[in-house]
Amino acid sequence: MRTGSEGTSWDLTTILSKSPLALPPPPRRVQSEATGVVQKMSENGVSSRAKVLTIDTMNPTVKKVEYAVRGPIVQRAVELERELSEGIKKPFAEVIKANIGDAHAMGQQPITFFRQVLALCSYPELLNDSTFPEDAKSRARRILQSCGGNSMGSYSASQGIDSVRQDVARYIERRDGGVPCDPDNIYLTTGASDGIVTMLKLLVCGEGATRTGVMISIPQYPLYSAALAELGAVQINYYLNEEKCWSMDISELQRALDEARRHCNPRALCIINPGNPTGQVQSRQCIEDVIRFAAKERLFLMADEVYQDNVYADGCQFHSFKKVLFEMGPEYSNTVELVSFHSTSKCYMGECGFRGGYMEIINMDNEVKAQLTKLVSVRLCPPVPGQALMDLVVNPPQPGEPSYENFIKERTATLSALAEKAKLTEQVLNTVQGISCNPVQGAMYSFPRITISAKAVKEATDKGQQPDMFYCMKMLEETGICLVPGSGFGQKDGTYHFRMTILPPTDKLKILLNKVKEFHQKFTQQYT
Amino acid sequence: MRTGSEGTSWDLTTILSKSPLALPPPPRRVQSEATGVVQKMSENGVSSRAKVLTIDTMNPTVKKVEYAVRGPIVQRAVELERELSEGIKKPFAEVIKANIGDAHAMGQQPITFFRQVLALCSYPELLNDSTFPEDAKSRARRILQSCGGNSMGSYSASQGIDSVRQDVARYIERRDGGVPCDPDNIYLTTGASDGIVTMLKLLVCGEGATRTGVMISIPQYPLYSAALAELGAVQINYYLNEEKCWSMDISELQRALDEARRHCNPRALCIINPGNPTGQVQSRQCIEDVIRFAAKERLFLMADEVYQDNVYADGCQFHSFKKVLFEMGPEYSNTVELVSFHSTSKCYMGECGFRGGYMEIINMDNEVKAQLTKLVSVRLCPPVPGQALMDLVVNPPQPGEPSYENFIKERTATLSALAEKAKLTEQVLNTVQGISCNPVQGAMYSFPRITISAKAVKEATDKGQQPDMFYCMKMLEETGICLVPGSGFGQKDGTYHFRMTILPPTDKLKILLNKVKEFHQKFTQQYT
Repeated sequence: MRTGSEGTSWDLTTILSKSPLALPPPPRRVQSEATGVVQKMSENGVSSRAKVLTIDTMNPTVKKVEYAVRGPIVQRAVELERELSEGIKKPFAEVIKANIGDAHAMGQQPITFFRQVLALCSYPELLNDSTFPEDAKSRARRILQSCGGNSMGSYSASQGIDSVRQDVARYIERRDGGVPCDPDNIYLTTGASDGIVTMLKLLVCGEGATRTGVMISIPQYPLYSAALAELGAVQINYYLNEEKCWSMDISELQRALDEARRHCNPRALCIINPGNPTGQVQSRQCIEDVIRFAAKERLFLMADEVYQDNVYADGCQFHSFKKVLFEMGPEYSNTVELVSFHSTSKCYMGECGFRGGYMEIINMDNEVKAQLTKLVSVRLCPPVPGQALMDLVVNPPQPGEPSYENFIKERTATLSALAEKAKLTEQVLNTVQGISCNPVQGAMYSFPRITISAKAVKEATDKGQQPDMFYCMKMLEETGICLVPGSGFGQKDGTYHFRMTILPPTDKLKILLNKVKEFHQKFTQQYT
Repeated sequence: MRTGSEGTSWDLTTILSKSPLALPPPPRRVQSEATGVVQKMSENGVSSRAKVLTIDTMNPTVKKVEYAVRGPIVQRAVELERELSEGIKKPFAEVIKANIGDAHAMGQQPITFFRQVLALCSYPELLNDSTFPEDAKSRARRILQSCGGNSMGSYSASQGIDSVRQDVARYIERRDGGVPCDPDNIYLTTGASDGIVTMLKLLVCGEGATRTGVMISIPQYPLYSAALAELGAVQINYYLNEEKCWSMDISELQRALDEARRHCNPRALCIINPGNPTGQVQSRQCIEDVIRFAAKERLFLMADEVYQDNVYADGCQFHSFKKVLFEMGPEYSNTVELVSFHSTSKCYMGECGFRGGYMEIINMDNEVKAQLTKLVSVRLCPPVPGQALMDLVVNPPQPGEPSYENFIKERTATLSALAEKAKLTEQVLNTVQGISCNPVQGAMYSFPRITISAKAVKEATDKGQQPDMFYCMKMLEETGICLVPGSGFGQKDGTYHFRMTILPPTDKLKILLNKVKEFHQKFTQQYT
C-alpha cells in the first residue's frame, strides 16, 4: 500500500504547465467503446466478465419511470433536426417543437430588467456602468449583499436566500389580498419539479395495502407519475371532465379515493391550476370544494400553481389555493395541510433554463418541517442565479422606478400574445373535422381530442404503438411538427389526444395549425 | 361542480391592474400559524383533526438521513450570527464558518473571465459593449448559439448542452493525455451531488441479504451516507489509514467487502480523490490497485474527482481514475465500469452557487445508459448558467487570447494561496499538544485528530452528545469558530477529529488557527 505521495516532486508552476488548459490538437477518435469492448474482450479472453450494472440488475423503480414530454417522439425530432442539418431531404424545412413549454426556445424574449440584474449580479463591475438603470443596480446590490462574500458563487442557505424568501412572502401576501405569509414557510427550489419531488418523498411510506397513495389528475403532467413510480408510491387517477372544459368533479374524486382505499393508503391530492396539459382554470367554488374534500378525507394538498399569471379566457381568474383556504375560515385555514409550487419557468418570464422556483408550506407539522429542512440541506442549495431570478419575479420594478414602464410593456406584450394564441389555437383546431378542442383558458397548452379511425388504431396496435403515438409520430415524419401524444399524460380509455404548446410566434403558429389540419385530414382519409 | 369559469369578465388590462405587482404597504404580521392553530382549533372544536403528515407517518428513510456539514452546529452558528447582529454580547466579534468548502463566502474572488462571459450570456446586449474582451464575447456567442432561441432561459437537452459536452470531452482528453472521450458519455449535472445521487439511484435493488451495498470511505463526505440512507441501500464502511496519511489499503477494502457479503450485495465502490474530508491525494499505484480490486470483485467504481486541481503537496499529482484505467490495458479499460464526477464548485473556481457539474460514464451497459438518459429527463435539465460555467472551466482562455494572462494570474494566485494555507494549517495545528494533523496534500480541508480526555468524553456522553460534537460546539460558543465534528464524517471508534476548511484568507486563517490552539489548550486543561 502506498501513502498517497509519489517520487516525483513538482510545484505549482509545473502543475500549470502540465495542466489540461493548453489545447493540443484533439486526438483522433477511436471507435466507440461499446464496439471496442466486444472485440478486445475476445482478444483478451475476458469476454465472460459481465457488467456489474445491467438492465436486469438495476433499480426496478427507475425502469418504471416514464416521461413523455421528452420521450421517443422528442428523440426522433432531434434526429430529424440532425438529418436536416446534414442535408438529408425531408418533406419539411424545419422541425417545430411544440412538445414542451419552453418559451424562449420558441422566440419569446426575456424581460430586459431581469437580465440586466442577472448580468450585474454575475459581473458586479457593471455596477459602475452608467448605462444600467438605477433600479436594476439597487436590486442587484440587494441580492449580492445577501450572498456570502457578495458573490452568486457562494452556497446559499439550503432553504434559499433569506431576503429572497422575504420577498416571496410579501409577493404572496399581495397576491392573496393580505393573507399573511411567513418567510420561514418558503423553500426555494430548483424549478417546481424539485419541490414537487421533495414533497412527495416526505409523504411516501408503508408497504402493500398501507403504501402511500397519491391522487393525480388524468390527464396529468408526467412529472407526477414519474416521481411516484420512482418512489414506489401508488398513483391514484382521478379523471378531469373533458365535457365540462376539463374541470374537477368532486364525485369523481370520491370515486377514485374510495376505490384506492381498498388497496393503498391515500394521503395526498395533487392539483395543477391552471391546468397542464389541459389548460383549464379552476373556479373559486371548485377550489373550495376540493379543500373541503381534502379536509374531510384527510388528504395533504399539493397545488401546482406555476401558471398563475397565464390566465386568458374571459370570466376566468386565478385563485390561489392558499387564499381560498384562508377565506374558508379557521376550521380549514388552521388545519388543512397545503403546499403550493411556483417557478420562474412559466408565466410571462419563461426562464426555464435558470431552474428557479419556490414552494410555500402551510400547516405542516413542525417536526416534519425540520425533516424537510434537513433533507434539502443534503443538496446544499438551489442554483443561486435561479434564486436571484425568482426574487425579481416577486419583486419587479415598481411605479416610479426607471424600468417600470418598459417592464410592464414587455410583460403585457407577452401575456397579450399568449392570450391571442390561446384563442387562435382553439379556433383553428375546432374547424377540423375529427378534432375537438376545449378553450385554452390558461397555462400554455391545448389538449384537443382527436378521432382516430378503427383502421388506424389497428395498424398502431399491430406495430405495438399507442394509437396517438402512431398519429403523432406520423405527423412528425411528414410535417416536422413535434407534439406529445395524449397517452403520455393519461386519458380515458378509447379517447385520443395530443398536447400542443401555444408558444410559437403567431405567424409560425398559424402555419403549424394549418399543417396539423392538413395532416389530420390526410390521415383520416388514409385510414378510412 | 363548476366548469372552471366564473361570472365576472375581465381582460388583460384588468389582470394587470389587479396583479400583485403594485406594492401596497405590507400587511401587519399576525401571530405564528402554529400558535394560531392551537387557539382556534379549540375555539372551533376541531382540535381532534390530526395532521396527515407527522413525524410518525412520514417517509422513514428520510428520517435516517444525516448531513453534518449543515447540521446542528451550523444552525447554532447562524443563530449566533443573528444574535451578534442584534447586539447581543459574545466572547467574539464574528462567527467564522470553516465548516463548508464555500470559497467565495470566504472572500475568494471569482475568475473575471468566467463572470464576464456569464454577464454576456445573461444580457446579450452587452455583446455590443466594447469594454468586454473579444474572447469573452466569442465564448458567450458560442454558448448562446447552443441555447434554444439563443437564450439561457431555454431548457437544454436533459443530458446537457451538446457543445458543452463536446468541450468537456476535449478537456478530459487533454487532461488524460489523449485517452479518448465520447461526448455521449458526458452528462451535465446540478453540481456533483446530483450526479452522485443519480448514479447511486441506478445501482440500488434487491431486498434483505440481496440489497445493494455501496462501499464508502470512512471518513467520508456525508452526501454519500445521506443518499444511501434515503435510497435504503447498505452502507459498507472501509477505513482510510490515518497513520499513512489517510491512504487506501486494499486489505482493508477486502476486509470490508468480505464482511458485507454476509448480509448484502456489494455492487459499488466510491472513492473521493483528492480526499474530502481528509485531504489526501492518491498515488497512481494505489489507484491501479483499487481498479484491479474492483475488477476482481465486480464492483462499479464511482470516482469523486471534484478537487482535481486542488493538489498542493510536493510529490503529489492528480491521476484520474479513467487515465489509470486506460493505461492498464484493454482487460481493464474495456470492462471496468466507472463514473467520474466533476464540478464548478471547487478547484480554483469555487463557484458553488451555480450548481454546475458533469459526470463521465465509462463501460456502462447500453440499456442502463438509456435508462439513465430517461431518468435525467424527468428533471428537464441542469441549470443552464451552471452549464455555461462548466463550459468555461473546461475551455478557458488560451495563449494568445486577450484574457489569457489575467486568467492565469488569477488562477495561479488562488491555487498558490490555497497551497500556502494548506501548509500553514498543517504546521500550526501540529504545534498543539493533543492535535495531530496529516499533511493537507490536496482538496480544501484538514481533518486533524484531537485528543479528548476521559473526563470530557464523560461529560459529553452525559449530555447525549458525541465527544467531538461537544468539543466543536464549545469551541463555537467560546470563539465563534464553526467546524464540523469528525463524527459527522465517520471515524474509527475512540478517535476524535474535526474538519476545518483552509479557505479563510491567510490573515484570518492565522487568527483562526491560533484561536483553535488556545481553545484546545484551555479545553484540555479544563477537562484533565
